[in-house]
Amino acid sequence: MSDPQTVSVPGRIMSAEMAEQPAVLQRILDEGAPAIREIAAQIAARNPRFVLLTARGTSDNAALYAKYLIEVLLGKPAGLTSMSTTTAYGAKPDLTDCLVITVSQSGGSPDLVASTKAAREAGAITLAVTNNAGSPLAEVSEFHIDVLAGPEKALPATKTYTAELLALYLFVEGLRGNDGDAAKVLPELAAGILARQAEVKALAERYRFAQRLVITSRGYGYPTAREAALKLMETTYIPASPFSGADLLHGPLAMVDNVSPVIAIVPDGRGGEALQPVLDRLRGRGADLVVIGRQDQVDAASAGFALPGGVPEEVQPILEILPLQLLAYEVTIARGQDPDAPRALAKVTETH
Amino acid sequence: MSDPQTVSVPGRIMSAEMAEQPAVLQRILDEGAPAIREIAAQIAARNPRFVLLTARGTSDNAALYAKYLIEVLLGKPAGLTSMSTTTAYGAKPDLTDCLVITVSQSGGSPDLVASTKAAREAGAITLAVTNNAGSPLAEVSEFHIDVLAGPEKALPATKTYTAELLALYLFVEGLRGNDGDAAKVLPELAAGILARQAEVKALAERYRFAQRLVITSRGYGYPTAREAALKLMETTYIPASPFSGADLLHGPLAMVDNVSPVIAIVPDGRGGEALQPVLDRLRGRGADLVVIGRQDQVDAASAGFALPGGVPEEVQPILEILPLQLLAYEVTIARGQDPDAPRALAKVTETH
Repeated sequence: MSDPQTVSVPGRIMSAEMAEQPAVLQRILDEGAPAIREIAAQIAARNPRFVLLTARGTSDNAALYAKYLIEVLLGKPAGLTSMSTTTAYGAKPDLTDCLVITVSQSGGSPDLVASTKAAREAGAITLAVTNNAGSPLAEVSEFHIDVLAGPEKALPATKTYTAELLALYLFVEGLRGNDGDAAKVLPELAAGILARQAEVKALAERYRFAQRLVITSRGYGYPTAREAALKLMETTYIPASPFSGADLLHGPLAMVDNVSPVIAIVPDGRGGEALQPVLDRLRGRGADLVVIGRQDQVDAASAGFALPGGVPEEVQPILEILPLQLLAYEVTIARGQDPDAPRALAKVTETH
Repeated sequence: MSDPQTVSVPGRIMSAEMAEQPAVLQRILDEGAPAIREIAAQIAARNPRFVLLTARGTSDNAALYAKYLIEVLLGKPAGLTSMSTTTAYGAKPDLTDCLVITVSQSGGSPDLVASTKAAREAGAITLAVTNNAGSPLAEVSEFHIDVLAGPEKALPATKTYTAELLALYLFVEGLRGNDGDAAKVLPELAAGILARQAEVKALAERYRFAQRLVITSRGYGYPTAREAALKLMETTYIPASPFSGADLLHGPLAMVDNVSPVIAIVPDGRGGEALQPVLDRLRGRGADLVVIGRQDQVDAASAGFALPGGVPEEVQPILEILPLQLLAYEVTIARGQDPDAPRALAKVTETH
């Protein structure tokens, strides 16, 4: 997992990989985009009626982001698959006219390979989005997009997540014949956010002894809430529950009181507007509310991290997750643990 | 929310509603089934290509159960919708050939009504599954199934959940021309489980001071894990994180150590088999593992609650949740709180 020199510097690998993100985003825009557009054009010509997305862990959060893009930008119905219906129960749905997108950093998990193979046999157009062009998943899929993030060695995925988001954004834009120009500003803005690590380190103090976290958002920000929760759970070991704002009001809100830490990702746009009543309820419960979002949203909360304005809502998730990756890192360091090597985990998870 | 006489007996309403479940299940089988079969026949004749499910909270867990049924038994692709794509972003997907099932106890939440209306305008066959035939949701849907659970007054939904599960099971069986005979044993078995409340009360001691819970399952048991987590969160206020066994291995396993309470729902069938490697990993981490499942599975764990054998896996979820409802109730009572009226909640949640 980690070589001897890294053991002495906890978090060195994760830290280096987070820092690579602006360069990875730039590489996708410069070197990856033409191939992504070409694949999108070929798939668009086959006119899929609906889209299924298959993934696990961090990549499942990238898949959820793609689901929003497909429904909102493309106007096609989309769903996340429950893989066990194929791998455990042998379900054989008719997938004619269906695009099945499988997202996986390693492209190596046997259940993803098996379900993609089954989807292809069932008539689906299959697309793999991975960080490994030579992987079994890339092999069994009709189409493959390489997210070009370079080898990822830390157990918590960071650069492959933002790379998957950007690749999926360019792909969905490609399906409707667009170049995805809104993404061009991302590398520079990402570098600006990552340069503010000291702000996040100060925010991390707050969670030094936290026993739980609730993380909420809505719309395009919801995948970010889920990925932030996963990142915090696997590095800090704090139970972090992600909820869409609407689901939070349907029950789990009862958990929140005046000693409950809540992190809200507030998109600058319709998702953020839809989240406002939830934020009001949380403030009413006396929750400690930390906001990742526009400066005025941060000012109305207990604390937060302000994101740059003027970015279209559909690409904001590629920036929103950055301070939350840094937060997972800083809280883990503050707790004396090593973010590079969470206990009990292996980089390629072989689920069946 | 609760009238004066109930305030003096915490949990009286929830307790009574849990106890009604065998009678509600019997009523659906006796009085509801013919109408469900008729609706299923009409929808089957229109031959939908794929199915989208829309719901919130407890009903979203019932919708997830239906997704497994549709994929495994019916062989059609299915997905859970992200409602905000319609209500916040105005997405207008083409839903020709699509069956949209909206599940809601009250049938009153404005976002569910709006998204169902939008789905119908977009060409979908729309079906509402509610406990209120006079609700706005029943009104805007082309088809409506009444789950016949009678008024539910406790804030934590119990009898409407199992009623939704059974109605959805009979509907999916009806779509493929079956009567769903596997469900006939459920009322008697449910009564047998509910009669064992003393066992659950003893188990509840274990969680008197728990700060967190991980709840896991796989396949048909996964909706149960999600519903159990929601029930425990909204009544006991303990943060309970539900994971499919496969997702647990992709990161969150790091949270689990020898003082972490884990509840595993182990289906008797393929879902349970697929969960075994996860149970081994959890035991390897020294987790306190409580199992809801077959007697031999309970015997191999730290403790548990044995379910009756010989029940087809696809209807087991209707029984599995019962000891977990009782557990939420008993832990809440042990903590001196009132399960009938969790703080901060209202029965009909008006999300937009």
